[in-house]
Amino acid sequence: MEHKLNDLLTKGRGVFLALDQGLEHGPKDFNLQTINSEYVFHLAKEGNFNAIILQKGLAIRYHENYRYKVPLILKLNGKTKMSPGDAYAPQLCTVNKAIKLGADAVGYTIYFGSPHEALMMKEFAKIEEEAHEYGLPVVLWAYPRGHGIDENSTDTLAYAARAALELGADFIKIKYNNDAKGFNWVVKSAGNAKLFIAGGEKTDAKHVLTEVHDAIKAGVSGVAIGRNVWQSEQPLKITDAVKAIVFGGKTVEQALKLVKR
Amino acid sequence: MEHKLNDLLTKGRGVFLALDQGLEHGPKDFNLQTINSEYVFHLAKEGNFNAIILQKGLAIRYHENYRYKVPLILKLNGKTKMSPGDAYAPQLCTVNKAIKLGADAVGYTIYFGSPHEALMMKEFAKIEEEAHEYGLPVVLWAYPRGHGIDENSTDTLAYAARAALELGADFIKIKYNNDAKGFNWVVKSAGNAKLFIAGGEKTDAKHVLTEVHDAIKAGVSGVAIGRNVWQSEQPLKITDAVKAIVFGGKTVEQALKLVKR
Amino acid sequence: MEHKLNDLLTKGRGVFLALDQGLEHGPKDFNLQTINSEYVFHLAKEGNFNAIILQKGLAIRYHENYRYKVPLILKLNGKTKMSPGDAYAPQLCTVNKAIKLGADAVGYTIYFGSPHEALMMKEFAKIEEEAHEYGLPVVLWAYPRGHGIDENSTDTLAYAARAALELGADFIKIKYNNDAKGFNWVVKSAGNAKLFIAGGEKTDAKHVLTEVHDAIKAGVSGVAIGRNVWQSEQPLKITDAVKAIVFGGKTVEQALKLVKR
Amino acid sequence: MEHKLNDLLTKGRGVFLALDQGLEHGPKDFNLQTINSEYVFHLAKEGNFNAIILQKGLAIRYHENYRYKVPLILKLNGKTKMSPGDAYAPQLCTVNKAIKLGADAVGYTIYFGSPHEALMMKEFAKIEEEAHEYGLPVVLWAYPRGHGIDENSTDTLAYAARAALELGADFIKIKYNNDAKGFNWVVKSAGNAKLFIAGGEKTDAKHVLTEVHDAIKAGVSGVAIGRNVWQSEQPLKITDAVKAIVFGGKTVEQALKLVKR
Amino acid sequence: MEHKLNDLLTKGRGVFLALDQGLEHGPKDFNLQTINSEYVFHLAKEGNFNAIILQKGLAIRYHENYRYKVPLILKLNGKTKMSPGDAYAPQLCTVNKAIKLGADAVGYTIYFGSPHEALMMKEFAKIEEEAHEYGLPVVLWAYPRGHGIDENSTDTLAYAARAALELGADFIKIKYNNDAKGFNWVVKSAGNAKLFIAGGEKTDAKHVLTEVHDAIKAGVSGVAIGRNVWQSEQPLKITDAVKAIVFGGKTVEQALKLVKR
Repeated sequence: MEHKLNDLLTKGRGVFLALDQGLEHGPKDFNLQTINSEYVFHLAKEGNFNAIILQKGLAIRYHENYRYKVPLILKLNGKTKMSPGDAYAPQLCTVNKAIKLGADAVGYTIYFGSPHEALMMKEFAKIEEEAHEYGLPVVLWAYPRGHGIDENSTDTLAYAARAALELGADFIKIKYNNDAKGFNWVVKSAGNAKLFIAGGEKTDAKHVLTEVHDAIKAGVSGVAIGRNVWQSEQPLKITDAVKAIVFGGKTVEQALKLVKR
Repeated sequence: MEHKLNDLLTKGRGVFLALDQGLEHGPKDFNLQTINSEYVFHLAKEGNFNAIILQKGLAIRYHENYRYKVPLILKLNGKTKMSPGDAYAPQLCTVNKAIKLGADAVGYTIYFGSPHEALMMKEFAKIEEEAHEYGLPVVLWAYPRGHGIDENSTDTLAYAARAALELGADFIKIKYNNDAKGFNWVVKSAGNAKLFIAGGEKTDAKHVLTEVHDAIKAGVSGVAIGRNVWQSEQPLKITDAVKAIVFGGKTVEQALKLVKR
Repeated sequence: MEHKLNDLLTKGRGVFLALDQGLEHGPKDFNLQTINSEYVFHLAKEGNFNAIILQKGLAIRYHENYRYKVPLILKLNGKTKMSPGDAYAPQLCTVNKAIKLGADAVGYTIYFGSPHEALMMKEFAKIEEEAHEYGLPVVLWAYPRGHGIDENSTDTLAYAARAALELGADFIKIKYNNDAKGFNWVVKSAGNAKLFIAGGEKTDAKHVLTEVHDAIKAGVSGVAIGRNVWQSEQPLKITDAVKAIVFGGKTVEQALKLVKR
Repeated sequence: MEHKLNDLLTKGRGVFLALDQGLEHGPKDFNLQTINSEYVFHLAKEGNFNAIILQKGLAIRYHENYRYKVPLILKLNGKTKMSPGDAYAPQLCTVNKAIKLGADAVGYTIYFGSPHEALMMKEFAKIEEEAHEYGLPVVLWAYPRGHGIDENSTDTLAYAARAALELGADFIKIKYNNDAKGFNWVVKSAGNAKLFIAGGEKTDAKHVLTEVHDAIKAGVSGVAIGRNVWQSEQPLKITDAVKAIVFGGKTVEQALKLVKR
Repeated sequence: MEHKLNDLLTKGRGVFLALDQGLEHGPKDFNLQTINSEYVFHLAKEGNFNAIILQKGLAIRYHENYRYKVPLILKLNGKTKMSPGDAYAPQLCTVNKAIKLGADAVGYTIYFGSPHEALMMKEFAKIEEEAHEYGLPVVLWAYPRGHGIDENSTDTLAYAARAALELGADFIKIKYNNDAKGFNWVVKSAGNAKLFIAGGEKTDAKHVLTEVHDAIKAGVSGVAIGRNVWQSEQPLKITDAVKAIVFGGKTVEQALKLVKR
């Protein structure tokens, strides 16, 4: 397994390109360029990302030409924003299918604190068993969500990270809450699993790079970034800058220079 | 798979004859002529449609004589209008059975935005895996439905089309909302999947042909038409007119002449 | 399959003896004579019915001696009147078990319009696939039921008949609503499936025979009768009279003479 | 099957010792002597009961030494009194496991009239199929329960008995309602299945023996007795008295003398 | 099985180290030392505990180096404190996976009195069958929980213990309610299953040792202790003290001296 994990990492760290927003948010995240997934796949290859994150539909219809070029993290569950009620993202792809599609790892979201938490924990538990049976690493999106849950509390994020560890995740993807000092407790709570921070809405380069820098300093192993890359007018430059921080230990200022070349 | 898709298309486009209204709406859509399904099957053959769309019952009891003459899209789920509560159409036929019945593709409806969205996404996800295992194309009826959902909004339709793409559909059937300008965004959101518009209630020929024309111009790959054909007194003429637009690039006026011959 | 269907018919028509009331209504339908199921089995044989309709319990404990003498339609689902809540009759017997018990056909009730409609349609769909796999005909009790459903409306009955056809039923059992003129639309809605009317509470011979006569005239293929036979003091005479109408094309008056012999 | 049934009967009748109260009522039914299950197993052997009724836990941990000495009816479902909500006793043991534990029959409770009736009928239906596949008799605890259900009405008990027959039970265990005259209708409603009455709370010997006597006279095939035996200070004498009535046709007075020896 | 049970006991008694709090309570139970699970695993080995109790995540990621050194009780279900609603801890690991991870026993929590009691009893029932099939002992956390349930009542605890026995548990873990006199009834209610008391929040040594002493005197077979060991500044001394009472029959005062060395 260790070897398989390392296929998705560069010296223990990683930068993933997220392209699973189409199901979660709809096409509103895209413009006339990015609505064409070929464009984003091209960026994934040119930017030499450690992996691209996809729902099975894009994997089926676009990834074939990028096999062996862009490693694939197949997201096994998801939901639309149209769906009402408490947060639940059903499993939409089996581990078996993910393997046939060339996945190097599989992903799943648990909304901890949702009334459907138990259902998602059960689905994930089966996925963990099946994926590890095949030696496939498992990424858990550990997202606190629900009535009375403060999604930005460091303690809550630490709990989500710990729960993910206890459930057998190899990688844990979590929102970064900008608590630069406190976030190391989240990292520690994840034990020896690899903690990654999620990207988020498009914002300016300095803000993105500061987040990545602070999170890396707090001990995270990498970042999954999407909109801030492919919605950017300089996607490969921002990619270089992020990688300079994650892999090269650069400061925010040093990295910003790569964007402003 | 590409080959199998093409079995249902003519140079990349298609006109399907829908005859799955009996379960969804009841016999009120039929008259003394069309209540006899043999009549509609005959039209399907004479009109040389790319496929007929059926629930399994009609496939079991009527399609045998039309095998190899009229390609079959077997609709795997459905519901009656009598059923109360939020929109959910349960799976009523397995992929296996569809294959035994000679299906060239299978179909499934997801009501995006329904409280049962997750359940339908799960059922469809299994169908996608099974059908593609056999090389059978999958058609997704992508219908937004539910509290607070504007079924005619272009953005909502674009989201439904994108969700269908992300779920692995080969063909996406969607309602046309008469937004001639905006509908291209729906088409683009469907990526490289084939987008078809659904027909609807019987209306006059000019209206039908205008819809088909505008949708084709917006980039859709075809139309699934039912009541406007078999409720018509000139079913084969209207069929010719629709085909003239879809396959022949004719204008509405040119096509109308075929009806009024 | 055609052959198997004909095993339950006489020149395309049939008269079935229903004895599944014990579960649905309780023993209140029986008297000191009929509470002994042997008595009713004896009638089934003497009356030369096309089939007897049973839940599995009576089939297990009484039918063995009547195998090859009285064809068996095994009812696979049912419920008690004690059960509260919306109409749902769970599956209580597998197709496999039915076959072991010597069934010549299997039956299932769907309450169209119930909040549990989807569940029943799914259960029936699996039964249809399994039974037809073995060449066993399938009888669907198509009963509209629920808030806002008019169980006696001809349109509603026609919808139920059509839904049953779309679901793949070979035989459709439906309540007769005494709309002598309109009922042909129900028959037509059932397409090429065989439509049977259900019996009902014990009433006088003339009333029963009139219903059977009118329904046959409207085009139904037969009747499933129970209480009006085995609660009668002249069960075999009433049987003869029903058969005279169904098979012999007799009038009500002619048939009544057979009862009053 | 007939043979297997007879293994649990003496000339067609039986007296069973119930020891399944621990799960249903908790240890409050026990005292310092009976809390030790060894004591009750000893009584079962010395009293030469036709069978002992156990949940799987006691069968696993105590019955091994009594195999071939005390026939075993394994109760497959149960619940605690702590569980809130409408009556439902989930299946806790498979037929397979019961066979491994040496069961001579399996038992299951249906609470007819509960909102969970359908669920229990389905679970029981599968058990009936599996158990009979192995030639294992099936005992159904037929207990009416729920809003608007009169558990002591003779008509209700007759319905429960009939429903049990229709579901394929070999033995039916039912509460006796002291309607000495009317109870024969309950017996008749059970058809050719064996009807047993349940015991109940500890009461005086005369009362117990009168109930057993009247029920036998009404036609039942036996009794399942528990607390009135092992909570008694003279458990083997009361056992002898019950057996004198069930097997020996004694009067209450004659039987009482055996207790007061 | 007897042999397998003894692998987890020392002369019929045991002291288990619990480290399953990460999922149930979150990382708040840990400090900068104990957040590193290696530290606690080290204590488990040095303290020579009869077993360590883990969720599968820690077993996957930390236990490998301690195989054959620290016996493993794999907890198969669990939940977070974030999850709303009535108590239910879903199954998160199969018996199969537990065996692959080197488990010497498997554990499961039932919240008796929860509206989800039936679901948990069913899940546990399957686990019991599977685990015993492999000769693996089964530990049941028997926790009363819910509206109107007094979790500290001796009668309620006795009922939970008895229910656990009836369900086939080999070991029963239960909260100790400090009813030194009455607790023997709880022990007796557990029959010939091994009753263990759960630890609890960190408290002073005297209090912990008094609880252990009184429970042992009441007849329990051991204790599962966690926070009072690894949150202690003298974890191995407190371990020695507990073992002196459980295995050596020491008084509280004698044991306290081992802490204060």
